Amino acid sequence: MTQRKMNGAESLVHTLIGHGLKVCFANPGTSEMHFVAALDRIPGLRCIPGLQENVVTGMADGYARVSREPAITLLHCGPGLANGLANIHNAKKAHVPMLNIVGEQATYHARFDPPLATNTVALAKSSSHWVKTVQKSADAGKAAADAIRATRTSPGQIATLILPSDASWNEGGKVAAPLKPKPAPKIDMRNVRKATRILRGKRNVLLLLGGSALMAEPQKHAAAIQAKTGCRLMAESINSYHQRGQGRLPIERVPYPAQVAIDLLKGVEHIITVCSRAPLGFFAYPGLPSHHYPPKATVTPLCSVEQDAEKALAALADELSAVRIEAQVVQRPSIPKGRPSSAGLGVMLGAVIPESAIIADESITLGAEMYAGSHAAAPHDWMMVTGGAIGYGMPCATGAAVASTGCRVINMQADGSAMYTVQALWTQARERLPVTTIILSNRKYQILIAEYGNVGANPGPTAMNMLDLGNPDMDWVKIANGMGVEAAKTSTLEGCAELMLQSYKSPHPFLIELEI
Amino acid sequence: MTQRKMNGAESLVHTLIGHGLKVCFANPGTSEMHFVAALDRIPGLRCIPGLQENVVTGMADGYARVSREPAITLLHCGPGLANGLANIHNAKKAHVPMLNIVGEQATYHARFDPPLATNTVALAKSSSHWVKTVQKSADAGKAAADAIRATRTSPGQIATLILPSDASWNEGGKVAAPLKPKPAPKIDMRNVRKATRILRGKRNVLLLLGGSALMAEPQKHAAAIQAKTGCRLMAESINSYHQRGQGRLPIERVPYPAQVAIDLLKGVEHIITVCSRAPLGFFAYPGLPSHHYPPKATVTPLCSVEQDAEKALAALADELSAVRIEAQVVQRPSIPKGRPSSAGLGVMLGAVIPESAIIADESITLGAEMYAGSHAAAPHDWMMVTGGAIGYGMPCATGAAVASTGCRVINMQADGSAMYTVQALWTQARERLPVTTIILSNRKYQILIAEYGNVGANPGPTAMNMLDLGNPDMDWVKIANGMGVEAAKTSTLEGCAELMLQSYKSPHPFLIELEI
Repeated sequence: MTQRKMNGAESLVHTLIGHGLKVCFANPGTSEMHFVAALDRIPGLRCIPGLQENVVTGMADGYARVSREPAITLLHCGPGLANGLANIHNAKKAHVPMLNIVGEQATYHARFDPPLATNTVALAKSSSHWVKTVQKSADAGKAAADAIRATRTSPGQIATLILPSDASWNEGGKVAAPLKPKPAPKIDMRNVRKATRILRGKRNVLLLLGGSALMAEPQKHAAAIQAKTGCRLMAESINSYHQRGQGRLPIERVPYPAQVAIDLLKGVEHIITVCSRAPLGFFAYPGLPSHHYPPKATVTPLCSVEQDAEKALAALADELSAVRIEAQVVQRPSIPKGRPSSAGLGVMLGAVIPESAIIADESITLGAEMYAGSHAAAPHDWMMVTGGAIGYGMPCATGAAVASTGCRVINMQADGSAMYTVQALWTQARERLPVTTIILSNRKYQILIAEYGNVGANPGPTAMNMLDLGNPDMDWVKIANGMGVEAAKTSTLEGCAELMLQSYKSPHPFLIELEI
Repeated sequence: MTQRKMNGAESLVHTLIGHGLKVCFANPGTSEMHFVAALDRIPGLRCIPGLQENVVTGMADGYARVSREPAITLLHCGPGLANGLANIHNAKKAHVPMLNIVGEQATYHARFDPPLATNTVALAKSSSHWVKTVQKSADAGKAAADAIRATRTSPGQIATLILPSDASWNEGGKVAAPLKPKPAPKIDMRNVRKATRILRGKRNVLLLLGGSALMAEPQKHAAAIQAKTGCRLMAESINSYHQRGQGRLPIERVPYPAQVAIDLLKGVEHIITVCSRAPLGFFAYPGLPSHHYPPKATVTPLCSVEQDAEKALAALADELSAVRIEAQVVQRPSIPKGRPSSAGLGVMLGAVIPESAIIADESITLGAEMYAGSHAAAPHDWMMVTGGAIGYGMPCATGAAVASTGCRVINMQADGSAMYTVQALWTQARERLPVTTIILSNRKYQILIAEYGNVGANPGPTAMNMLDLGNPDMDWVKIANGMGVEAAKTSTLEGCAELMLQSYKSPHPFLIELEI
């Protein structure tokens, strides 16, 4: 038997598997067919389809938030990548690893400007830390090794490898061995000592946690520091992965609305940032400052998002001789009754979130009080839409369920945002994933109606035509059923809680339309 | 009463209305709120929401194909634009006018890198002919006038105006008067005479029509030229807007599959291009050439896509002393029966397309014979996915219905592509648009299964998991109903025809799931 030589695509697949990668979320096209054939021939990667590329990239984001390992996305050339950019953007701001493999026209064909040709490199660069176009099959394996090393750069990076179809189909592929990832920058003891001096000598100090500082272990040091010094402790407004619930530290978030944040932070004189940035407005507003903390406050970094929050906080606690304390045990609430409100949703979640659940929160306007109240729940992990590009929730929940192997994923999902990547429901059904989706169905872009209010008036009919999602109302039970996901509708908190508890009994996805 | 000074957004809206623009397809966000408020205060633009940006831009494409006038799209900053790029790409390849207004962070806020910030200019440039960021409110009106002039450059261009929120809300806006569009380049009589010499003196000449050459009037000259010279006449493989049906010229398209096209064009010795490009592969394939016409064939442009096809073909007919002929009257077929096939669908459409209907064709694998057969229908206009980015059909049909004021729009829609921009159904319901959608439900990415075959083997289970859309099957009746569109399912040609004829009686949208 003569052995066929390895082509570029095959060398790439072998390299991916050799690096320990496990999952490829995919929506391929013609230019990726040789790569698909290589995936077919070489077992080792679980390939999961998404029916639109922003679903594919959002699933990879969710997968990485849970596993801390890169998933592969397989995307079609040009516009295929464009379709997936919004959730790549969210993933970049979530500081997760992700490896995008994007097809491209054959190297000799692109210069004729075929219909699908576009500036793939420019699109990729807009949301990637690392971008490379493979020029020939012999380079595909090495490029993948470089890309994976980039994804594993602390705290996680986006690498986009562009693969022309001839670099995929030509023979001469070479498998590349894993490269040692660049080590994370060490914590800087000068910063630790600076923070120690502030916490010892100053009043009105805010310790602001973000990134990996919101994992369970670092929080314990933060709790000790707070108990010892009396500092304020907050989390950033939007967080990638926050471990919370019973036994963990209740942490208030910096509020999203500009004026609310400014008022709340008025007394702060010193901010110590831990994998975080000093509070900045999501948007600018006329007459309000860009930053939401007092202009005279000092900002001192304890560590950057690339550094190890646990080590930095441990060192700080040590310098301060702060000792670990037991977390206050909070009474788990009973299931509340009646019409849903943000606060009511929080109490309800406090009652029904099961242990080790993962929450994908794209609740938008209903989120603030819901978040605070739900801390009383069993220990769970909480994800948010880090880059502000709506349509992250459903795919992120889907990818998280792929990574979590059995934990329940709960997607608290605003209806307007849900419609952006509604196709994710089909992948949940196809892969039989344990996702419970709660559609917070208020039939409007409520956040924009509030933002319109900031402009100084009530929306008139022209504006409301763009901000209202009624007329016709979406029927979420039908939409979910149409994609193979069981669903039910309710308009009360107790109804929602009951459906949630029921859904946990099945390993399959379930959707609840909760009328607000 | 003291008058408030005009802000940038208001000057922009006045400028748009002053230029005769009529429709704004929109999915705004916070950074666009002052522009939304200006639309509210200043009547004159019809604002139509889309539930995802690729729906918004696809609607603008369909609107422009029918009206030949630019629609405005209002898109959210950064990732909002990214979401809409695929259909902007299709619109660019369709040579239609389109004005994208994209919000942006306030000029002074962007440098702090807020979560939604990205390289909006690079994203815009990937698919626009003209891009400008307004720096201050006084420039907004003038920039809009420049942008609209760009959109009206023959045959139609994409202009993207990036509007930072402070340039929108600050006072000092100035309304700008319309600028005279750059005239289309005149036809070149030397090219006309060159083409004349070839058509008179050479054999095996192919007259290849594209762009505006496929409108009804230019076709009459092409028919005369063909009758006089015996040349072959074809249309490009993919066309933006083709007027066809009874009384018009039956024109074969260059086939999409590479080998089929190469075989069909084997005997061609001379190609005269009319607003078209000599046949080029959509993709490259191992062992096949990039171009699908014989390498020795000469290629002579009669006119470019920017030039007036009617004038060029009239001049050519004149030089050749070719006189107009009556189009052959084709018998309209009866409604066929039985299970659908590509040919059967063509006959069915021949029987049931109503006069002046507009067809949005995203039928993919079922399209080739369907197209040929449907020429026997009443006169109608036919649109295709020009840039190869799937997910154009539903939004394009929606926008076409907005522009066409009453003509029936028929969307022949592959199921895989439909899922890309399925949210368009809701806008059809909201705006009560006369769109009949036929979902060609084969529950697979059939074109990719065929392309996989070109790789040399049958797809195995890993590949099929990415190419098969069953398990679970989409239920299109439920999905449509869930977004407020009435729907029915059928599995026969006669059943589909009957539902189509029924749907014409109502001015509202209707969806037919046709099981293939």
